[in-house]
Amino acid sequence: MTITPAEHAAMGRALELAARGPARGPNPRVGCVLLAPDGRVLGEGHHRGAGTPHAEVDALAGVRAAHGEGAARGATAVVTLEPCNHRGRTGPCAGALLDAGVARVVHAQHDPNPAAAGGAARLRAAGVDVVGGPMADDARTLNATWTRAVELGRPVVTWKLATSLDGRSAAADGTSRWISGRAARHDVHRLRAGVDAVLVGTGTALADDPDLRVRHVPVEGAQPARVVVGVRDLPPSSRLAQAARSGEPVHHLRTRDPRAALDALWALEHRHVLLEGGPTLAAAFWRAGLVDEVVAYVAPVLLGAGTLAVTDLGIGTIADAVRLDVSDVAVLPADTGDPADPTDTTTVRLTMRPRKES
Amino acid sequence: MTITPAEHAAMGRALELAARGPARGPNPRVGCVLLAPDGRVLGEGHHRGAGTPHAEVDALAGVRAAHGEGAARGATAVVTLEPCNHRGRTGPCAGALLDAGVARVVHAQHDPNPAAAGGAARLRAAGVDVVGGPMADDARTLNATWTRAVELGRPVVTWKLATSLDGRSAAADGTSRWISGRAARHDVHRLRAGVDAVLVGTGTALADDPDLRVRHVPVEGAQPARVVVGVRDLPPSSRLAQAARSGEPVHHLRTRDPRAALDALWALEHRHVLLEGGPTLAAAFWRAGLVDEVVAYVAPVLLGAGTLAVTDLGIGTIADAVRLDVSDVAVLPADTGDPADPTDTTTVRLTMRPRKES
Repeated sequence: MTITPAEHAAMGRALELAARGPARGPNPRVGCVLLAPDGRVLGEGHHRGAGTPHAEVDALAGVRAAHGEGAARGATAVVTLEPCNHRGRTGPCAGALLDAGVARVVHAQHDPNPAAAGGAARLRAAGVDVVGGPMADDARTLNATWTRAVELGRPVVTWKLATSLDGRSAAADGTSRWISGRAARHDVHRLRAGVDAVLVGTGTALADDPDLRVRHVPVEGAQPARVVVGVRDLPPSSRLAQAARSGEPVHHLRTRDPRAALDALWALEHRHVLLEGGPTLAAAFWRAGLVDEVVAYVAPVLLGAGTLAVTDLGIGTIADAVRLDVSDVAVLPADTGDPADPTDTTTVRLTMRPRKES
Repeated sequence: MTITPAEHAAMGRALELAARGPARGPNPRVGCVLLAPDGRVLGEGHHRGAGTPHAEVDALAGVRAAHGEGAARGATAVVTLEPCNHRGRTGPCAGALLDAGVARVVHAQHDPNPAAAGGAARLRAAGVDVVGGPMADDARTLNATWTRAVELGRPVVTWKLATSLDGRSAAADGTSRWISGRAARHDVHRLRAGVDAVLVGTGTALADDPDLRVRHVPVEGAQPARVVVGVRDLPPSSRLAQAARSGEPVHHLRTRDPRAALDALWALEHRHVLLEGGPTLAAAFWRAGLVDEVVAYVAPVLLGAGTLAVTDLGIGTIADAVRLDVSDVAVLPADTGDPADPTDTTTVRLTMRPRKES
């Protein structure tokens, strides 16, 4: 099926509008433009995050406010994602479009969410002309992580791994500050700022008493949730226990099962989580096939002994090694330029995805 | 002191000529241009490798052949390196320039070799006008490794390190083919082709029966020498023992002392050696402070267990870790594009130098 030049232009605009929405959280970023039968733009809208109107409803409300009730009758809705057919915090968009008398819907990405899908079918059954697919790749890219999470039915897991060049995370005596350079340590905050939750095991929580908040970089919306996975208690004096008592979003998931942890995080509406360690928790996720992306900070330091950054992945022979496909390599430069400063070195960041064997 | 525009142009030409010489071997690459007193070019020459005339002698011979005896009288010699004052396989260049009646010498790099230095002083003592230093950085860059070796009084050591992302060189059962991608394995041959000798310990020689020759890439001149360091015997059936019997340049240095091995290699006129392993030999060089450069091939593979690529560097705490300054990061791409081919992955190459603490 074809779309008109006006609809194509409107889809480009809808994608721009969609990009204004929040990049993380339970909902995708969606934009909508309403066109009159002659191709004039009647109004536009976008989704601003969970609990606020969906893009179609936002656009319809704008048209109604500007042009009065019934102004969208016979209109075409151009929307970046197939209108939903489920009632969450807000009503289904398919119903809202039908109520408004929209005659045609052009959408880009098909809804990957089994719970929400069926919007196009419902609209068609009610006699609306529905075209799906134009610019779907752009729309999918805009919500790449959300789409993946919805398809997987669990949060997307990014594993952050920091290692010396020879695979160590600490020296023989346990000291580890600092293996990575300063730019790499700051870069981790950028990673945190892009996810819904940051995960560590109880081992790391007990050993390092981490804070896990985003610092150094701006955060869009709230701080990501901080999550400890494992059955051991944290002392009440620990930073995370104190933060929980202060009402900050800190969760202790008392399980050793990565799938159970992800199910709980999914129920908390987390779609992208950052696994920061330690090695035991990371290995459990890896062995369960629950790592979707690896971001490794390789510091140009040799230790020759000490704690290994990665242990016990259940791999006995090279043929069983899981290869990673490298999508990005970045050199994070030293920022002081002072060669005598041992806390500041260039670090190499590799972004990778486990290769799915064919 | 200043030089004339004609001399400046001649030095640029001399550097071009120098670059035609062999990049490895015991001697530096040197070029020479002889100018008449009015700035005209009388002749030019360059050094073509050990046992052939030095650049000054090559240029003087050309001038003599073209213009007859005495044609260089009163001339200016523009040369990329301070004329030598020692008799090696060929006579000292300072003497040759004096014999030819050269009145002025402009040289770039000062001779870093204590055994050869003194050429400028000898020329000055004989009344020649000598200017040293113009474009010295360019000349030094052209012979960077040779200069470093001469200053150190031993071969420059490049350590080649291949590791999985988590610091392993083999899986739990000892299998290691292939951790690095194909492009990385070929790149190692490029490294070999740039050195005078390739070194392994007896452990690696016995375990892997390596060939150590350059393959896949062209070699300028002879294959680099192949050197085994350690006291254990190699079986007569090993590839290296067979090559030695065939008269190929294979040496077994029966010592465990890296400094003694380098002294022997220096006496064999090797100026740049590639340390390929194994971990015991590499650690001995590292602990002795005898590693000048590290080229690490980091493969995007996780093993979680197995042989560690680097062991026992004598580092107990993070403050004692030796940082490396990264001079280059290269992504060596997979070359088949077949995601099902486990022997072909992208590999990241880091070129580094141990940071000298101030």
